[in-house]
Amino acid sequence: MTDLSRERAVALDAADPLVSLRDAFVVDDPELIYLDGNSLGRLPKATADRIAQVVRDEWGAGLIRSWRHWVDLPSRAGDLIGSTLLGAAAGQVVVSDSTTVNLYKLAAAALDARPDRSVIITDDDNFPTDRYVLQGLAAQRGAELRVVHTDIDDGLDPDLLRDVVDENTALVSLSHVAYRSGALLDMAAVNAIVHDAGALVLWDLCHSAGSVPVELDASGADLAVGCTYKYLNGGPGSPAFLYVRDELQAALRQPIWGWFGQRDQFAMGPSYDPVPGIDRYLAGTPAVVGIAAVEEGVRVLAEAGIDRLQAKGIALTDYVIELAGAWLPGFDLATPADPRRRGSHVSLRHPDAWRITQALVEAKVIPDYRTPDRLRLGPAPVSTGFTDVWDGLSRLRQIMADRSYERFSGEPARVT
Amino acid sequence: MTDLSRERAVALDAADPLVSLRDAFVVDDPELIYLDGNSLGRLPKATADRIAQVVRDEWGAGLIRSWRHWVDLPSRAGDLIGSTLLGAAAGQVVVSDSTTVNLYKLAAAALDARPDRSVIITDDDNFPTDRYVLQGLAAQRGAELRVVHTDIDDGLDPDLLRDVVDENTALVSLSHVAYRSGALLDMAAVNAIVHDAGALVLWDLCHSAGSVPVELDASGADLAVGCTYKYLNGGPGSPAFLYVRDELQAALRQPIWGWFGQRDQFAMGPSYDPVPGIDRYLAGTPAVVGIAAVEEGVRVLAEAGIDRLQAKGIALTDYVIELAGAWLPGFDLATPADPRRRGSHVSLRHPDAWRITQALVEAKVIPDYRTPDRLRLGPAPVSTGFTDVWDGLSRLRQIMADRSYERFSGEPARVT
Repeated sequence: MTDLSRERAVALDAADPLVSLRDAFVVDDPELIYLDGNSLGRLPKATADRIAQVVRDEWGAGLIRSWRHWVDLPSRAGDLIGSTLLGAAAGQVVVSDSTTVNLYKLAAAALDARPDRSVIITDDDNFPTDRYVLQGLAAQRGAELRVVHTDIDDGLDPDLLRDVVDENTALVSLSHVAYRSGALLDMAAVNAIVHDAGALVLWDLCHSAGSVPVELDASGADLAVGCTYKYLNGGPGSPAFLYVRDELQAALRQPIWGWFGQRDQFAMGPSYDPVPGIDRYLAGTPAVVGIAAVEEGVRVLAEAGIDRLQAKGIALTDYVIELAGAWLPGFDLATPADPRRRGSHVSLRHPDAWRITQALVEAKVIPDYRTPDRLRLGPAPVSTGFTDVWDGLSRLRQIMADRSYERFSGEPARVT
Repeated sequence: MTDLSRERAVALDAADPLVSLRDAFVVDDPELIYLDGNSLGRLPKATADRIAQVVRDEWGAGLIRSWRHWVDLPSRAGDLIGSTLLGAAAGQVVVSDSTTVNLYKLAAAALDARPDRSVIITDDDNFPTDRYVLQGLAAQRGAELRVVHTDIDDGLDPDLLRDVVDENTALVSLSHVAYRSGALLDMAAVNAIVHDAGALVLWDLCHSAGSVPVELDASGADLAVGCTYKYLNGGPGSPAFLYVRDELQAALRQPIWGWFGQRDQFAMGPSYDPVPGIDRYLAGTPAVVGIAAVEEGVRVLAEAGIDRLQAKGIALTDYVIELAGAWLPGFDLATPADPRRRGSHVSLRHPDAWRITQALVEAKVIPDYRTPDRLRLGPAPVSTGFTDVWDGLSRLRQIMADRSYERFSGEPARVT
């Protein structure tokens, strides 16, 4: 297509079946172009109301009595995520803890379930906290962490995985969508490779849940975790989710034996005796306000439907790639060009990516910077319009034309 | 004293130096007598406003840019708790995860720091999640969990501890204030016993933080955790805190290697390299809304001051004991009578405790039930008046007089 006019963006928005859902979100500053929905999703209007209701009515007025319905929140929110976004039947997902803690719990449980095997496999493009958690577990258990090399623009080649997974592999842990490139792995293909070797697979769905269909049950996945503050719009640091396939729940035991996993919890008996079912993967007292916010965030996605979200994500990222190709000759695409092979974000490579990121923020366009030289653009399907993409890329084009980014420091700050 | 009139309660409230702070809390129903502040603290008015501000302004409007100030929340809130309530100098406390997860992190770190020792010691009256976490760690590491017997009305006798702690002890983990009886342990005495044997000590401060002065630094404590949803008024499931003594921070390594403990976090480097200092005890992304609520809750306590809170707690629990002694002949005190040996809650023993609990709730008095036969009354010092105690005990007296509790089931429900 060659129509690069803003009118075309307006027309694409008008034809968007999800356009009305953009009104479900708080937009404080209409001038601000938010292209970082894959780092922190926008605030749904219903969430602000729900949080106020939980705080005022359930906590303030109901006080301790509200535990009657709070106690089911982790599994209720988990089932909603599972059925809406993860292809998981009820009773396999709970919302609890952080992604990091959930990764630790499930990776440790998987290693315990394969006591005669000593190798953990991940890839060098996996998200940092995943790599660190696995390093820690390997160090603590004298296991070997084998790190497969991944092309950071194009994602992991499953054939490389086939070469390293063997009869000594206990666990393979990978991200479904890569945090930098957005490259989407073939979950079913990887599951088959891992299972052929008798190992277990643990998926990080942080960048795929809510952006592409995930088929945990159908693809034969064993374990998964993911965060809720990106596409799921749960708010900053909202509790994460975890999935344990039904038939593994009784066999695997997570290492943090907490009272919310205990059978007949308020008998407060002398010995840990975990409940059957997914609640045994809970540990401490659930973060009530956070989980309520997750429920509201996911409800907006449920209304959209994951297939329409993926279609919109493809259309938005295709549009980013098209405009970047036409307007931004200094940038290289650092994301698979084939939309079936990526999630809902796009990375563009430029040696001055960090300075450009700062200039964009000043110009009221919020992207993300990722090492070493990536400008990452995450137009969340549910809350981003084609005009947002056009306006954001247009401002970027201007920044490149007048070289205004050169005023900024080349040294990345700790938090972007 | 023999004046059991309500007028005396009114006079005590009028003379209470903390009386004005009761206005800092949302009181939805003035008829409701809330005596469960040691299970879930009341909602401070400032917290409702702060949560709305974090949600609307920092998340909704600021979006990802707000991480610039969110990133310091765990240590900022930790330092506030440490300096106000725990006798801990700055840089030793962070707010993160749940009490259960923090217990696991610190207990595992302590065991790793004593690799030649194989015994963990706790007591059989420790809170269930503490016992379960330690059971799990013992099972996972082939360690022995030695459980000291405690009088559930009177608390642990430190001399019994002296008999079991020896050169093979790696870790002693105890609650500072017992969850049922309210019995307060002598922290300095226990620390000395444990350190004489070369072991480490991990305190659970869930029922003492905010109710009695805690002197972590001065008493020589090594490690501590505690929850923020009881006396600290952080809200249901709000994130917990942890303390690691300054000089132990570099030597101990917690097992969950997450990206929020990583040096130069956003360099996203290949290997885990924890920051120096207390932040290495963080794991995943902090629960921003929850920590902000903790800050507000603790600010109310800071205004009161822990010495005045303890004095008020003693006066309130003395008053409970006095009225119960006069009005409730069927109940036995299941809490140390000496106010220097207890926290801010009182347990009363009665064979029908569970049925009486239900009758009280129907009469708009909220106590707590604890196994096997305890009615637990926790008049939070900062938000409870002497008239609340008088009214609550008066309704209980009526329930006992007309035996209306006999209508209720004797079978405890899962959540009380």
